[in-house]
Amino acid sequence: MQQVSSNPLDQVRIVLSHTSHPGNIGAAARAMKTMGLSQLYLINPKAFPDVAASTMAVGADDLLANSCVVDTLEQALLGVTLVAGCTARPRDLSHAMHSAREAAPLLAGQAALAPVALVFGTEMSGLTNAELDACHVLIHIPANPEFSSLNLAAAVQILAYEMRLACGAAVMPEAAPLPLARHDELECFYQTLETALIEIGFLNPAMPRRLMTRLRRLFARARLEHEEFNILMGILKRVRAPRPENSAFADNDIVE
Amino acid sequence: MQQVSSNPLDQVRIVLSHTSHPGNIGAAARAMKTMGLSQLYLINPKAFPDVAASTMAVGADDLLANSCVVDTLEQALLGVTLVAGCTARPRDLSHAMHSAREAAPLLAGQAALAPVALVFGTEMSGLTNAELDACHVLIHIPANPEFSSLNLAAAVQILAYEMRLACGAAVMPEAAPLPLARHDELECFYQTLETALIEIGFLNPAMPRRLMTRLRRLFARARLEHEEFNILMGILKRVRAPRPENSAFADNDIVE
Repeated sequence: MQQVSSNPLDQVRIVLSHTSHPGNIGAAARAMKTMGLSQLYLINPKAFPDVAASTMAVGADDLLANSCVVDTLEQALLGVTLVAGCTARPRDLSHAMHSAREAAPLLAGQAALAPVALVFGTEMSGLTNAELDACHVLIHIPANPEFSSLNLAAAVQILAYEMRLACGAAVMPEAAPLPLARHDELECFYQTLETALIEIGFLNPAMPRRLMTRLRRLFARARLEHEEFNILMGILKRVRAPRPENSAFADNDIVE
Repeated sequence: MQQVSSNPLDQVRIVLSHTSHPGNIGAAARAMKTMGLSQLYLINPKAFPDVAASTMAVGADDLLANSCVVDTLEQALLGVTLVAGCTARPRDLSHAMHSAREAAPLLAGQAALAPVALVFGTEMSGLTNAELDACHVLIHIPANPEFSSLNLAAAVQILAYEMRLACGAAVMPEAAPLPLARHDELECFYQTLETALIEIGFLNPAMPRRLMTRLRRLFARARLEHEEFNILMGILKRVRAPRPENSAFADNDIVE
């Protein structure tokens, strides 16, 4: 099942033990796929395959089709070097307990070398003591202490998200950056703005107070783009010009 | 609806726009509650209340019962100072785009002072252009580029999780921050700006192209403060008024 891969996310197994609701298996598969995980192991699911699983998987049917259905935790952990159990509450004789954010880099570092596993217990009662015994670390998702019952697929979603970020696979889609206005353009804009504010009677040059300072601060925060500079200069030109006849619009062809 | 509270999580609104499946509303409510969020706003949900919503909410029925069902984004954003739109892909003329992890401390810092909103579009098509126009920042959840379609409740779960962590660890700014302009003030400013641009002959209402979108984007980046809103409204008032006699200056006593 485990394939050789240079992508650590391919080495991260999600192991769902004795899941009651097949819909949760499908939703977990979808959650995994959105974060680039692919290795799904199911220990004795109550109903699988099942139409509810496929319905909830939406476009992640391939993960269901390639999932490994096994009888024991042993089988699900074959070849795994680091086993993390997900639990909502601390246990007696607890293993080292990490938050999801703390644990993810630990798992990601190991996943670069060998398979690792994140084990989730049943919806109702979580991991059994025998399952806890097989874990090397326990992972806790910080939650509202008065209502900590995350849905199984929601817990998988958060852990998969943390694993994706920890594996460095998070690439922000970039809109092509637009060129910023140059310093000399900005100064030209501020000068023209000041002149216009005086002309329309808003800024009294005999008592300027800190108006221009405040306006500079505002536009500095916005980091004007070159095209925005052109637009603002066009507006100021119209502000300073005599009021036009109806329907005489400026040719503001700088706006696409 | 909004109550005075010292807990910034109580100031974080989750706004779901035109949600198709009531089950997703219920699952989103559960996701919110696990992370300690409580303020749910629903803009024209296709079916709500609905048994599917209650079924998926499990123990979060109280959030459904206390949710605000409204007709417009305007109503959902009443009193909000920072509006974040959740989007899977970059857009043309995009607002500042942040990853969920980058954006959370920003929102948490503001939520300590005033209501903030996280806006989610429909399951099929996400946020409309009009909704994007109302946002100050866009948030992206890093995902598998080949399968980035997170379930709506899964996206709410991740953002709620990031907000919980950010509110716990939010480093508050040292200097007393200046209050931001409210959403309704910003909309009032944009409306007045548009009217003024038409009056001075810069904006042709018969061929508006994307001028207002560009200007909204500029001022959204700047995150207008309340006092700056007052200044800009004062300027627009003078722009729209008849040109004054020499030395007749407006009483712009809003500038210190």
